[in-house]
Amino acid sequence: MKYEPINFRDKLSMFDQHWSPRVIAEMNDYQFKLVKVSGEFVWHAHPETDEVFIVIEGSLDIEFRDGKVTLQSGEMFVIPRGVEHKPVAERECKMMLVEPKGVVNTGDAGGELTAENNVWV
Amino acid sequence: MKYEPINFRDKLSMFDQHWSPRVIAEMNDYQFKLVKVSGEFVWHAHPETDEVFIVIEGSLDIEFRDGKVTLQSGEMFVIPRGVEHKPVAERECKMMLVEPKGVVNTGDAGGELTAENNVWV
Repeated sequence: MKYEPINFRDKLSMFDQHWSPRVIAEMNDYQFKLVKVSGEFVWHAHPETDEVFIVIEGSLDIEFRDGKVTLQSGEMFVIPRGVEHKPVAERECKMMLVEPKGVVNTGDAGGELTAENNVWV
Repeated sequence: MKYEPINFRDKLSMFDQHWSPRVIAEMNDYQFKLVKVSGEFVWHAHPETDEVFIVIEGSLDIEFRDGKVTLQSGEMFVIPRGVEHKPVAERECKMMLVEPKGVVNTGDAGGELTAENNVWV
């Protein structure tokens, strides 16, 4: 049988839209998604689940109501379920999200930055 | 509050033992583990879960009974539950595993390469 690796750079080259996660793999009922971001996202929380951010290229600030974390390439962070956060990228940042299938990018906030779910690349 | 990123390189510098995964983060009931590998592992399967391999540095072959995949830095693969596989690294490879808490590295095979579970770094 033919087995193929999933290459982050190849997958990232296949789309340009910001704040629009693309699924690249599933593990049980979890998904791995690549996303390109730039500028400010909306304050939101995911009441039902933790969420993992892994920065692949660039730098991402994640603001919390009581602090902030800055992630560089090769760094990750786990947003605990229910914790309000706002991702901000001064310049374009490429990253991977890991979370259960079905999680919506804007969580409990909704709004115009809400991306279509379960779009594969 | 003080929020700290989890830096893969920093965490990898804290241990040298091969085939001995170290937990760096938890997301719900899943764990992210770093591991350094070199040489041949044992054939095994995880009957209860898929398993994700992400190569951070170096190169890893994952052999299957009917084929093989080679992962380089920046590539990932999902081993489906129940599928026999044997990781092989010609030279030292540094990678991240993502899998449910409690998964044992040698799966259904056991043996002397079975590592202590849930060791954090």
